[in-house]
Amino acid sequence: MFLEKFFNPQSVAIIGASVDEQKVGGMILKNILKSGYLGEIYPINPKYSKIKELACFSSIKKLPNSVDLVVIAIPAARVTEALRDCVGKTENVVVVSAGFSEVGSDGKKLEEELKVIAKEGKLNLLGPNCMGVMNVENKLNATFGAFFPVKGGVSLVTQSGAFVSALLDFSQKYKIGYSKLATIGNKAVLDEVDFLEYLSADKNTKVIGFYLESIVRGKEFIEKIKKVSKKKPVLIFKAGNGQRTNEAILSHTGAMAGESVVAKAAIESAGGLYFDRLESFLAALRFFASGKKVISPKILILTNAGGPGVVATDMIESDSILELAEVSPEKKEQLAIELPKAASLKNPIDLLGDALAERYQKVLNIFANDKASIVGIITRQAGTDLKQILKVFAKASKKKATVPIYLGGKVFRHTFSRLADVFEGLRAGWQYSQMKNRKEQIPVFEKLPNFQSIWETKIKNTLDANRKMLTFKDATELVSMIGLDFLESFSPVEFLALEKKSFPVVLKIDDDQFIHKEQSGGLVFGIVNQDKLEAEIKKIRAKFGDLKLTIQPQVEAGLEVIVGAKIDPIFGPVLMCGLGGIFTELIDEKNIFVFPIEQHLMMEKLSNSKLAKIMEKKGIALESLIEVLKKVANLVENMKGFSQLDINPIFFYPDKNPLAIDIKIILP
Amino acid sequence: MFLEKFFNPQSVAIIGASVDEQKVGGMILKNILKSGYLGEIYPINPKYSKIKELACFSSIKKLPNSVDLVVIAIPAARVTEALRDCVGKTENVVVVSAGFSEVGSDGKKLEEELKVIAKEGKLNLLGPNCMGVMNVENKLNATFGAFFPVKGGVSLVTQSGAFVSALLDFSQKYKIGYSKLATIGNKAVLDEVDFLEYLSADKNTKVIGFYLESIVRGKEFIEKIKKVSKKKPVLIFKAGNGQRTNEAILSHTGAMAGESVVAKAAIESAGGLYFDRLESFLAALRFFASGKKVISPKILILTNAGGPGVVATDMIESDSILELAEVSPEKKEQLAIELPKAASLKNPIDLLGDALAERYQKVLNIFANDKASIVGIITRQAGTDLKQILKVFAKASKKKATVPIYLGGKVFRHTFSRLADVFEGLRAGWQYSQMKNRKEQIPVFEKLPNFQSIWETKIKNTLDANRKMLTFKDATELVSMIGLDFLESFSPVEFLALEKKSFPVVLKIDDDQFIHKEQSGGLVFGIVNQDKLEAEIKKIRAKFGDLKLTIQPQVEAGLEVIVGAKIDPIFGPVLMCGLGGIFTELIDEKNIFVFPIEQHLMMEKLSNSKLAKIMEKKGIALESLIEVLKKVANLVENMKGFSQLDINPIFFYPDKNPLAIDIKIILP
Repeated sequence: MFLEKFFNPQSVAIIGASVDEQKVGGMILKNILKSGYLGEIYPINPKYSKIKELACFSSIKKLPNSVDLVVIAIPAARVTEALRDCVGKTENVVVVSAGFSEVGSDGKKLEEELKVIAKEGKLNLLGPNCMGVMNVENKLNATFGAFFPVKGGVSLVTQSGAFVSALLDFSQKYKIGYSKLATIGNKAVLDEVDFLEYLSADKNTKVIGFYLESIVRGKEFIEKIKKVSKKKPVLIFKAGNGQRTNEAILSHTGAMAGESVVAKAAIESAGGLYFDRLESFLAALRFFASGKKVISPKILILTNAGGPGVVATDMIESDSILELAEVSPEKKEQLAIELPKAASLKNPIDLLGDALAERYQKVLNIFANDKASIVGIITRQAGTDLKQILKVFAKASKKKATVPIYLGGKVFRHTFSRLADVFEGLRAGWQYSQMKNRKEQIPVFEKLPNFQSIWETKIKNTLDANRKMLTFKDATELVSMIGLDFLESFSPVEFLALEKKSFPVVLKIDDDQFIHKEQSGGLVFGIVNQDKLEAEIKKIRAKFGDLKLTIQPQVEAGLEVIVGAKIDPIFGPVLMCGLGGIFTELIDEKNIFVFPIEQHLMMEKLSNSKLAKIMEKKGIALESLIEVLKKVANLVENMKGFSQLDINPIFFYPDKNPLAIDIKIILP
Repeated sequence: MFLEKFFNPQSVAIIGASVDEQKVGGMILKNILKSGYLGEIYPINPKYSKIKELACFSSIKKLPNSVDLVVIAIPAARVTEALRDCVGKTENVVVVSAGFSEVGSDGKKLEEELKVIAKEGKLNLLGPNCMGVMNVENKLNATFGAFFPVKGGVSLVTQSGAFVSALLDFSQKYKIGYSKLATIGNKAVLDEVDFLEYLSADKNTKVIGFYLESIVRGKEFIEKIKKVSKKKPVLIFKAGNGQRTNEAILSHTGAMAGESVVAKAAIESAGGLYFDRLESFLAALRFFASGKKVISPKILILTNAGGPGVVATDMIESDSILELAEVSPEKKEQLAIELPKAASLKNPIDLLGDALAERYQKVLNIFANDKASIVGIITRQAGTDLKQILKVFAKASKKKATVPIYLGGKVFRHTFSRLADVFEGLRAGWQYSQMKNRKEQIPVFEKLPNFQSIWETKIKNTLDANRKMLTFKDATELVSMIGLDFLESFSPVEFLALEKKSFPVVLKIDDDQFIHKEQSGGLVFGIVNQDKLEAEIKKIRAKFGDLKLTIQPQVEAGLEVIVGAKIDPIFGPVLMCGLGGIFTELIDEKNIFVFPIEQHLMMEKLSNSKLAKIMEKKGIALESLIEVLKKVANLVENMKGFSQLDINPIFFYPDKNPLAIDIKIILP
C-alpha cells in the first residue's frame, strides 16, 4: 500500500547520522535505536565507519541493498545531491532538513529541484522542513523529537514538527495513546491528502487529527474527508488567515494559507470537524481518544459540589449546541430512594460532598439506558474516594458518553480537569455523530439550454471592450436565463426615448473602474424628473468623463441580501449569501457553500443562520432565499471561466418575488 | 480590626470536634492541628473529655475563658442552641453546618433564627453551609478541606466550599501562593462586602478573587470595589443567570442570583474585573498571582517553534483587546546581529528549534525597555534547556509582563501551558491597568425645578385610576421637562376636533393591560383618512372594550433605539440603551450603566459599542445619543419611586433631533 513503508519499513537509512546527539542526524539515530525498532538500520555519513555498533556507509549509493525508508538530515545545500543518490536505492524519503521555501526565493528554488528529482526518480518525498515520522505499533521513532508516546488510537498529521513535540508532551500527561504520526512540513510532494488516504485504511487509527497551516489540494482533501468521516472522526485544526498570521505561516512552512472561512465550510460540509482554537482541538482529540460516543445533545450533570454544578449548568445553558437534560419524575423517584435527603434531584444532580464511588455508581445505573451524556464532576473533599469514583466512570456503559471531570491539580487517564474542555469534547462528539448519520444527497446540476454559446459571446464582448466586468445588461441577460427577476435598466438614450417614464430613478456608472460606485459618487438616488436627470447626467459626465451610464427605476426597498459566488483557489467554486446593508459587518455572517452543494445541507445551515431569523421577523419565507441560491448555484455550474459573481443587493419582500438590483459578473 | 479574629485568632474552639476524622468536626480539628496553628485549641463535645491530648469541654459555656473564634460543626437542628451558648463567650463564629436556607422553607426558618441570635448576641457570623476560613501566614486551617496551600499574595472569598478545594488543588499544581481564604456559604450575616473590606486593608493580600453565586448588598459592594481596585486587582467570577442555573444556585446556597448583565456592568464600572467563565477567572488569577504588570495592549511573541507562533499570532489578530506589536527597523537590526540567519525577525520572532536560554535572553534584553508584553513560547525540542529558559524569564524585567508558556505536559511555577490562558491573563492585566489609571469623575445631578410636585401628582393620578403605568400624556409631560422631543399624541376626541388633521396616523391602546400592543392587535399603522380612522376606532373598541386610545401622526422612521431605566433589586437604578427593531436580538447588545453614572465611562463604553457603529454608518452623531442618555439619567435621578421607564423606540436621524415615539413609565 502507498506510504506503507513510511510507517512499516523493514529497513531505514539515515543520511547525516552522527555520533553527536546534539546534531539532528544524531538525534534521529538515537531515537530509532531507543524506541525499540526491530528492522535494519543504516547510518550514512562519510565521516564514520561505525556508529553505535552499526556499520556506517559513506553514501547511500554504497549500500549493498535497497532500503525501505531513507531519512535525510544534512544541511539544505547538500540535500539535492543526497536525494539524487537515493534514486534506485529507495522509494521513500523523508527530508528533515530546513532551509527551503520557508526561507525565501533561494530556498524555493532548492525545493523545486527536490520536486523534480523526486518526480523523475519516482520518490515518495516527505518534507522538507519536517520532523519525521513515527509508528508507535512498530516502535519506529524516525523523528528528532523528545517524546515517543504510548500506543493508542490517535494518528496525527501536522505541518509543524514542534506541534508534535508539544502534543506528545501534553499527551504523555493525559495518557493519550497514539498510532501513527507524520510531520509534513513544506509538503513539496506528499501532503495531507496522501496521509489521510493511508490513515483511513489503517485499522489501528481510530481518530485522525491534522494541524494545517495551508491546504493545497482542496477538492481531493474534501472528497477524502467525505469518505473517511463515515468511518472515523477527522479533526482539523487550521491556523487562521489574518494578514500577520499569513506572513508568519509563509515564513514557517512557505505556504499560502487560503481563506479560513472557505476551508471551514468545505471541511464541515464533508463531515470533518474544523477547529480554529488550539484548546478546542486538543479537548476534542482527548475526547475522541477515549472512544466515547455522543448520541444526544443533552447533558446530565452529577456533582459532589454545588458551586461547580452551578457553573457547569450555566455553561450548558448558554451553549448553542448542548442542552440540559430533564430528569423525569420516575427517575426522580428512583433517585430519592438512593440519595440522601439533602441531595438535589434536578439536573445538576448534587450528590453532596460526602458522596463516595458507590453513590455515583447508583446514579449512573439509574441513567444507564438514558441517551443523555453524563458529566460527573468530582472535587476532592475530605473522604472522597477519588480513584474508586474514576473506576466507576471507566466501567460505565459505553452506549453513550459518561465523562468524569476531576476539578483539581492531578491528572488522570480519560478524565478531564476543565469544564470547558469537557463541553468542547461533547460538542465535537455530537457534531460528529450527526454528520456520520447524515444521508448523502447527489446534487442536481441542470445544464442550461443555449447557455454556453451566449456565455461565450458575453466573454468575448467583455474582453473586446477591454473590460473584466460584464456590462449590467449582459449580466442581467445571463441572470434572466435562470429565472431570477431583476430590476430593469436603461441607457440614457433608451430611457429618454421611453414613452412613459416613471420617476424617481437611480443613475449609476456601469464601468469596472467603478466597482464601488457609492463611495466614488458614481451613484445618484432619488432623481424625481427629467430635468433633474439630465442635469445629473451632465454632472456625472463632467466629473468622470464619457462613461457607460445606467438608469433604473427606484423601487421600494426590501430586505437587502447579498448573494455571491467566486472561484476559491483551493476549493474551487463557492457560493455565499449574507445580509446586505449597514448591518452586514455587525451581524458578520457569511453563509458559505462549497460546490457541489447538497441541498439539504444548505437548508440545514441556512435554517440555523442569523439571516434566516431576520427573514422570519420580516415575514419573508426562507424558501425564497433557497430558491434564489439554487438558481445561482446552477448558473455558477454553467458559467465556466468566470471569476466572481455578485448580486448585491437582491431585495427580498414578504409578498413578492425577490428582485436583483445590482449584478456584477467578473472574469479572471 | 473587624474580622481580624477570623484570620488571626489567639484561640479557636470547635463545637462538634471529634476523634472520628470522617466527621466534619473531626476533620476541622485535624486540619487545625496539622497546619501548625500556634494558638489555643478547644475541642467542644460532651462525648469526650480529651481529644488528641487536648482537653475537651462538654459545652462552650464550660470554657473558663472567652475565645477568639468558634467553629460550629454539628447537625443543623442543634446549631441554634450552640450559637446561643456562644453569646458572651466569643464575638466570632463560623457555622460550617449545612441544612439551612439551601434546603427549603424549614431550613430558611432555622437560618432566620441564627440571624436573630447573632444580632442580639453581637456575633460576627460566617456561614452557615460553608467550609470555614484559612490564613496561610498564621498557619490556620479552620476548614474541613483536603488542602492547605503555600504562602502567597492571593486571597479568596467564595460562596462554594468545594470551589476552594478545587482551586487549592489546582493552585498546588501551579504553585500559586495564598494569603487568606473565606468561604461565605449562605451569607446569613457576613458577606462579600465585609471580607472585601478586610482584605483591602490586609497588606499580605495582593490580589482578591471572589466566586459568587449572588451579590446581596450591591451598592456597598460596588463602592468598596471602587476604592480597593485602585490598590489591588479585584477579580469576580459570578455564575450566570439562566433559569436552570438560578434553580441550581437556589438549592446550593439558598440565594437569588440577580441579573448578571447588571452585575457585570456595575462591577466593571467600579474597576473590578468580571468573569463569567471559570477558565478565564483561573487564568487571570494565575496571572495576577505572578505579580506581572501589563502596560500596553501590544504583545510580542518569541517562539522556538513556528507552528505555535502562527497559532498565537492568529489568536492575537482576532482578539478585540490585544494587539500584535510591531518590531521597529532598529530592533530588527539588533535582532539580526544576535539571531541565526534562518530566524524570523518579524513578530512572531522565531528563535528556531535549537534556541537555548542564551538566545531567549538576548532577545529579551533587546526588548527590555519596550512597553509591549512578551509571550515566550517554549516547546521541548531535542536540546532545549527548558529550566534555564524559564530562569531567564523569571529574571526578566519586572517593568512589563514577560510570560513564558511551556507547551507540553509538565507544569512550572509562573509558567503557562495554554496559549488561551496567557492571553486571558494579559487581557485582564491590561484591563486592570487601564481601570487603575482612570480618573474618577463626579457625576453631575441636576435637580429639575418644579419636578417633584408634578411627579407626585402623576403618581397619585395613576394610582387613583387603578393603573401602574402612567398615561402616555402624563409620561410625555415628564419627558418634556428634560427637553426631549416626543411625538405629539391626541385622544380621539382631541384629534377629531383638530382643524387641520394630517394623515396617515397611528392608533394605539394606552392601557397597562396592553404593554405589548403590537402582538395583541392594539396598534394600527397607516390610517390614511378620517373615515378609516373612525372605522378602526370602532373595531378596536368592539374587540377590547372602551379603553383609552391615542392617535399619533405617522412619521418618517429613523434609526430605532431603545432607551430604558429600571430599579435593579441589587444595584439600584440602571440605565440601558440598545438597538430597537428587528435586529435587537441578533445584535444582542445591552449597554448598561449603573448609577451614579460617570459620563466619560459612558462615552468610553458607547464608543466601542455596536450601536455606535450602526449610528456612524447611518451618519448619526453619537453625541446625540449621549445627550439623550444624560437627559434620561437626570430624569431617573429626579423620579424617585418609579420602577421602570421605557422609551421604545426613540428615532435617531442624521439631520434632525431624536424623537421619542413611545414612552412608558411604570410604578412599582
